[in-house]
Amino acid sequence: MLSKNQSKLLRALAQKKYRKQHQQYLVQGEKNILELLDAGLKVVHLFATTEFLSAHSAKLAGVTCTETDSDSLSKVSTLVSNNAAIAIVPFPESAEVDTSGIVLALDGVSDPGNLGTIIRLADWYGLNQVVVSEDCADHLNPKVISATMGSFVRIDVVRCDLPEFLASYSGDIYGAYLDGENVHGTAFCARGVLVMGSESHGIREPVGQYINTPITIPAFGVAESLNVAMATGIILDNMKRQN
Amino acid sequence: MLSKNQSKLLRALAQKKYRKQHQQYLVQGEKNILELLDAGLKVVHLFATTEFLSAHSAKLAGVTCTETDSDSLSKVSTLVSNNAAIAIVPFPESAEVDTSGIVLALDGVSDPGNLGTIIRLADWYGLNQVVVSEDCADHLNPKVISATMGSFVRIDVVRCDLPEFLASYSGDIYGAYLDGENVHGTAFCARGVLVMGSESHGIREPVGQYINTPITIPAFGVAESLNVAMATGIILDNMKRQN
Repeated sequence: MLSKNQSKLLRALAQKKYRKQHQQYLVQGEKNILELLDAGLKVVHLFATTEFLSAHSAKLAGVTCTETDSDSLSKVSTLVSNNAAIAIVPFPESAEVDTSGIVLALDGVSDPGNLGTIIRLADWYGLNQVVVSEDCADHLNPKVISATMGSFVRIDVVRCDLPEFLASYSGDIYGAYLDGENVHGTAFCARGVLVMGSESHGIREPVGQYINTPITIPAFGVAESLNVAMATGIILDNMKRQN
Repeated sequence: MLSKNQSKLLRALAQKKYRKQHQQYLVQGEKNILELLDAGLKVVHLFATTEFLSAHSAKLAGVTCTETDSDSLSKVSTLVSNNAAIAIVPFPESAEVDTSGIVLALDGVSDPGNLGTIIRLADWYGLNQVVVSEDCADHLNPKVISATMGSFVRIDVVRCDLPEFLASYSGDIYGAYLDGENVHGTAFCARGVLVMGSESHGIREPVGQYINTPITIPAFGVAESLNVAMATGIILDNMKRQN
């Protein structure tokens, strides 16, 4: 059973302020927790149903577990569909930007679902990191973790002063605009930065000044724009098909 | 002001049963309603704030409008962010499948957000239709309309018995699988059907038997899958770059 203090902590960790204070975050739902266990990442405490614990006992050696009914899990969960398991996990160690290959950098992407989807995409296209500006959504937000579909265990999110990073980078810096070079014709380097802006503000000027190759997904119809996660997926596909 | 009956009707139209009964659906939010007005589609009744009505008066000639405060609009709206305007719109006329170019067909895509995003993609890539199996999400669901970002005014959704349609189709039928031909190397015809299955069930056998070219987006990393809307976008980009 969940104690009062445990319920309180689980509820608190849905908020950024308390995640920062405890240096811990939540991983929820069967798929994400199995990825966490398979990756061998440290788990502070796992709360799960009898069914979950018995189905996955082989993966739980050394993990502090508390058996909990699904109603109690639903009550402390921030996600509608989660009632099998919740884990408390320590903050990941901070990473440096790896500039050896393609660097995916996000400028002001504040929607958690989009950030999570982009982390999943990075994992599909073989990147190890996503670089985010200070004001992007918190990547340890439960909605982000959920949308990554497990990819959060493999992708480091590096939060930094994006203009400062770009100023120090030497190499091609591609940026997604509505009037850049057609990505179907762009000769992409195997090493370079791809900058994506938010759907509402695009790439902002402090970042935009460093873009040396503005690129665009060609439209064949009338829709004005694509969602930032969708655009990121299509551009990464265009970059990786060449490299 | 909204009358009691108007509130009741607006709330009812959030449900499929009442949309069918009234042969009407809802369009909500500034962007979608402006697209509706610009497209010259018939509007039965528009409920909007003073600000919306005065800002867009030029587009409202001949439209039955009721001035409403934003609180009342929020109360009858099914969308969190909508408080500027709601329109009641008659059902679109039913369309036949146009087999002259690329036909995008969805098998069991039940998530409204995914369906809406795919309608927006179809509009970006210059298709005029999306063909959906009987059990796909209702395309007049408010969440679908919202996710289309206005593209619902240009894209016909044709609901049909998908196996029956495919049985009658002559030409290439591409289907997205996890182990098909690499889309980066596929020579796509300018005419053909692209079938996408749902994230949870993939393409089901009654439909799968008609696929003559199974295709796959190559993974460069570890993520197991992509969301169906994302995969649709990346595959359409691969098809349209050639045609």
